[in-house]
Amino acid sequence: MIKVGVAGYGVIGQRLADGVALQKDMVLVGVADLAPTLAIRALKEKGMPYDLYLVEGADKSKFDTLGIPVKGSFEDLLGKVDVMLDSSPGGVGVKNKALYEKAGVKAVFQGGEANSVADVFFHGYANYEQGVGANYLKLTSCNTTGLIRSVDCLDRKFGIDRVAITIIRRVADPGDYHRGLTNALQMDKAPSHQAVDLMTIMPHIEATGILVHTPVTHGHIITVLAHGKGGKKITREKALEAFKTHDRIRVVKIDDGFLGNASFFRYARDLGNSRGDMYEIGLWEDSIVESGDNIMYAINIPQESVTIPESLDAVRACMNMQPDSKSGTAETNKYLGLGKWK
Amino acid sequence: MIKVGVAGYGVIGQRLADGVALQKDMVLVGVADLAPTLAIRALKEKGMPYDLYLVEGADKSKFDTLGIPVKGSFEDLLGKVDVMLDSSPGGVGVKNKALYEKAGVKAVFQGGEANSVADVFFHGYANYEQGVGANYLKLTSCNTTGLIRSVDCLDRKFGIDRVAITIIRRVADPGDYHRGLTNALQMDKAPSHQAVDLMTIMPHIEATGILVHTPVTHGHIITVLAHGKGGKKITREKALEAFKTHDRIRVVKIDDGFLGNASFFRYARDLGNSRGDMYEIGLWEDSIVESGDNIMYAINIPQESVTIPESLDAVRACMNMQPDSKSGTAETNKYLGLGKWK
Amino acid sequence: MIKVGVAGYGVIGQRLADGVALQKDMVLVGVADLAPTLAIRALKEKGMPYDLYLVEGADKSKFDTLGIPVKGSFEDLLGKVDVMLDSSPGGVGVKNKALYEKAGVKAVFQGGEANSVADVFFHGYANYEQGVGANYLKLTSCNTTGLIRSVDCLDRKFGIDRVAITIIRRVADPGDYHRGLTNALQMDKAPSHQAVDLMTIMPHIEATGILVHTPVTHGHIITVLAHGKGGKKITREKALEAFKTHDRIRVVKIDDGFLGNASFFRYARDLGNSRGDMYEIGLWEDSIVESGDNIMYAINIPQESVTIPESLDAVRACMNMQPDSKSGTAETNKYLGLGKWK
Amino acid sequence: MIKVGVAGYGVIGQRLADGVALQKDMVLVGVADLAPTLAIRALKEKGMPYDLYLVEGADKSKFDTLGIPVKGSFEDLLGKVDVMLDSSPGGVGVKNKALYEKAGVKAVFQGGEANSVADVFFHGYANYEQGVGANYLKLTSCNTTGLIRSVDCLDRKFGIDRVAITIIRRVADPGDYHRGLTNALQMDKAPSHQAVDLMTIMPHIEATGILVHTPVTHGHIITVLAHGKGGKKITREKALEAFKTHDRIRVVKIDDGFLGNASFFRYARDLGNSRGDMYEIGLWEDSIVESGDNIMYAINIPQESVTIPESLDAVRACMNMQPDSKSGTAETNKYLGLGKWK
Repeated sequence: MIKVGVAGYGVIGQRLADGVALQKDMVLVGVADLAPTLAIRALKEKGMPYDLYLVEGADKSKFDTLGIPVKGSFEDLLGKVDVMLDSSPGGVGVKNKALYEKAGVKAVFQGGEANSVADVFFHGYANYEQGVGANYLKLTSCNTTGLIRSVDCLDRKFGIDRVAITIIRRVADPGDYHRGLTNALQMDKAPSHQAVDLMTIMPHIEATGILVHTPVTHGHIITVLAHGKGGKKITREKALEAFKTHDRIRVVKIDDGFLGNASFFRYARDLGNSRGDMYEIGLWEDSIVESGDNIMYAINIPQESVTIPESLDAVRACMNMQPDSKSGTAETNKYLGLGKWK
Repeated sequence: MIKVGVAGYGVIGQRLADGVALQKDMVLVGVADLAPTLAIRALKEKGMPYDLYLVEGADKSKFDTLGIPVKGSFEDLLGKVDVMLDSSPGGVGVKNKALYEKAGVKAVFQGGEANSVADVFFHGYANYEQGVGANYLKLTSCNTTGLIRSVDCLDRKFGIDRVAITIIRRVADPGDYHRGLTNALQMDKAPSHQAVDLMTIMPHIEATGILVHTPVTHGHIITVLAHGKGGKKITREKALEAFKTHDRIRVVKIDDGFLGNASFFRYARDLGNSRGDMYEIGLWEDSIVESGDNIMYAINIPQESVTIPESLDAVRACMNMQPDSKSGTAETNKYLGLGKWK
Repeated sequence: MIKVGVAGYGVIGQRLADGVALQKDMVLVGVADLAPTLAIRALKEKGMPYDLYLVEGADKSKFDTLGIPVKGSFEDLLGKVDVMLDSSPGGVGVKNKALYEKAGVKAVFQGGEANSVADVFFHGYANYEQGVGANYLKLTSCNTTGLIRSVDCLDRKFGIDRVAITIIRRVADPGDYHRGLTNALQMDKAPSHQAVDLMTIMPHIEATGILVHTPVTHGHIITVLAHGKGGKKITREKALEAFKTHDRIRVVKIDDGFLGNASFFRYARDLGNSRGDMYEIGLWEDSIVESGDNIMYAINIPQESVTIPESLDAVRACMNMQPDSKSGTAETNKYLGLGKWK
Repeated sequence: MIKVGVAGYGVIGQRLADGVALQKDMVLVGVADLAPTLAIRALKEKGMPYDLYLVEGADKSKFDTLGIPVKGSFEDLLGKVDVMLDSSPGGVGVKNKALYEKAGVKAVFQGGEANSVADVFFHGYANYEQGVGANYLKLTSCNTTGLIRSVDCLDRKFGIDRVAITIIRRVADPGDYHRGLTNALQMDKAPSHQAVDLMTIMPHIEATGILVHTPVTHGHIITVLAHGKGGKKITREKALEAFKTHDRIRVVKIDDGFLGNASFFRYARDLGNSRGDMYEIGLWEDSIVESGDNIMYAINIPQESVTIPESLDAVRACMNMQPDSKSGTAETNKYLGLGKWK
């Protein structure tokens, strides 16, 4: 049993903790945070299913006043784990790394950290093998993670050598009050970092793209134009068939009621998924069109939860639990129930 | 064991079914609907925890194609239940009533139906006793249900004779595509129907108010100005104390992180509540102010789930399960886990 | 002086009327509508700068009660004009056409009508010559009009043979209450009609694309991937240079403060433009990137006003005022002050 | 002719400058700012109708590069004016005050500054006389300005001794990217500062209230519950009659098409008002209801422009142009065309 800790019990950290708890070959030792946020209060109201450790700078008296049990310090946690999933706010992970090195603990960082924090910039499908046995991995961001799932799926079957994307980005998560956008679309300078990141993970592909922020909270939508390697034609039918085999891609139709990003959120709530989350990206069957030697399609990225499976893949890789992408992702998928719905 | 059916498996119907399933003295016989909506598809993907019956006009072949098991017709369902919870689209309930009468089945309608459909316009706290043994009850709407909880709470302790409200209404539910509002506030003619409805349920109170629609999906906010009976002063401290005793009111603070309606939604998701729902209304401690002989405060109404407890109260009342508000609401609260968090 | 009338004094009709009034070689005879809408009330409050005619079905007594002067019937208007700009609600234009034919009046329809209403599906730059002398023209829709401006600009300079677009569509206009979307992105089935329409106007180009609706009101954003004819490379610098010469394209930079669609609206308001409108599309210099033989860029479409210049071009074409695109668009641009800002 | 300057050419500053330019007994000497914002670029594109002066810290070379003529320094401007309208960002006005004192120039600050910056906290209707001859005035904020117009209107006719308000606040202006809120309502702690400010201006009234932020850009809506002095009943009819006489209040009906805050914006655009602005507050006739001795109603506050008339009143007061509220506001209204529409 691999012993895992989580640093930063926020939007991503809570989901990482839940994800680890579902893996029968891992044990969640505990989670670490700084302040009694709503997430920590919810943890307490649920009866502390996970042990709580406090990072440096935390005021323990605030937790005591609220009756929130504290198990120990961040160092205490590091002394008990094999690997940390670090979902601290951007920039904090770099500082934590020094502690991980001191404690001889491996770590998987989320997309908000600088690439330099890690030995390997990781994706469970596209470059699992590079992460095997490594000490420090960094996950791709939510958009890049979902995007690569779909591009890797086509690349394995048909070969892809060029990609152009348009990211229609959700600007905040449900419940966010520290960021937002009101009645406006906002441009980022091109090329988008997601296209650049894709090239880092899949260096045989030329990628570029444009990102536009939109004032919604339930999932990004990305349109992808992928060019068959050497001009090889990928038909709509073949692409669809490939997408349907993937355990982390849900192929849906507008006519079935999946009208947009919010439909996935509603469906996941109605499924009884925890927090209304979905680990899969969505892919609209009726968005797939051909353009010359390119295939074009649209995917939905559930930003709060989409990186969880690949984060667990990263634990598997760095801890040598499975030797390759196929076996590593299969274990993660099994414990998360992915692909069962097909 | 009281046998209950649900007509209309939409936003409210799904939650009614789940609520019934949690009551240890009720059994959910099944749910009825017309078409293979996303909600029905989710039911199937979950493995059909509830039996499905089809209402008249449904095309069974569509369900067969999708492999969704159908247990029988609406009439079949009516033959097996004691009482129906009817959350059909507005106007359909009236038509269903004829079937209920024919089958000798009692029914509880939701707020979208005309008052005339029922013998009693019902609220679990404010007029439970009027519903005892009645055949047809109609619930108050989501806003009115939550509003009355708070006004009834003050009225029982201190006496209230006048109320003026401002309803800041969410315009759609998460995942709704059939209605919406973009970058606009929209006025309703005054007085709002919620104020009028409050007077029907609590005829000793004069009520009026203004409703403004806003382009959000996570919960209405209502400001309430309540006048102590005969000019009796209700202090901020006394009001707060009263609110804190109520099992269906969560008193929160902005400083604790409950910054607005979306905070409740996030908190409920993090609690692990099904669908991220909350049965309680929220009440901001730091919104309570005095104005002459009036007490003013703001509440949050989780529109998708707030009427579920009072709907279950209604089953208890009409089926003579408990004789009065105190005992009836206590049973509902026990099975839903309400008040435990205090 | 060409005598022009406007049918339908709504969002588009008001702007068409203003646009005609600015053309020194046209005279606006009057506008026609059905009911005393806010637009008509504003016309009255401004002192009736345009004469008002009533279409069939209008209740004149309502106008009388409000003191709004009525000049005559729709037939009266048709008796005085050479050409009608028809911006009636979709479907009404077809019915009006019978009246235009009877009155021997030419007409230019907006994008909401079926293509079959017209002899020519028209764009001022891309196929002006086809409209010369024709009786019935139909304009491209707002997105298609702006999109074609940019594609035609590249096509004339470098040759384009394929286009793939992603339309990030605003879902309502400021002040719309009859449509809206709340916290959701909504998919249309691919390919988008704008791509199909582009192929009708520019049949030598293969086009496809995906459209996503977003809950904002100030302008669509389209990302365009255009393929150089026969694989001819179009560099970023060359594309930028071409765009900068166009009188109906404003090339801007994010760093200068044009952060998104709403920045154009604010800028147009601060310019003192009537209604805060802009006739030009915006094009972000820092969105232009190369992708193989493709050039990719993002444009902003001010949906309320973008079709006005091409509508005036259409009057010029069908009335034989100028013989070709170059001279026709130049006259329109002169009177609208387009290109002056460069 | 009173010589006026404007400090800070942003959302408010531009409108102050335009307002001054319309007063035939004032002359706008110039405007001062720090950087070549979009507003300054628009000024240049319009041909510099107003002279531009640079405040300390401005980099003149940036203006030179863009070909934007600069008339001089802030000190140069202060040497030429009698009074400054200061709409600098909050906190900067206090620093500017030292310069105003040194230059012997009076000043009117906007609501974002601390009250202590000024000798008088000013409203054109409610306390004009206190501002007569004063050196430093501070305007009420946009919500308070509009709110006081309506309360003062009732107070003068009937007497008011208590007010309770709910402010449904727009969270950003059109084109704002530095603040926003997405799919959420946000609470402020009660009582709202607007209620407190009202008591400062109208000390004979007890006021309290709750403010909720909403994700829209076109105008705040406030519901007001006003209590007749000593319990004197104010009927709906009397209140309506009073409101209709006010030159800065537009009484409208939902049935006429004024469905919400965005309707006012659309109407003002269609009127041809500069920037689609409206100086008047809106008041819905069909929102007025009675509640015991209270009258309740809803008003619309066009946040970008509503304080302009009262700012001009302030110039009139401090420069001794008119001796009292009646004559001062009448002059402002005459030049701005207010009340003409009735």
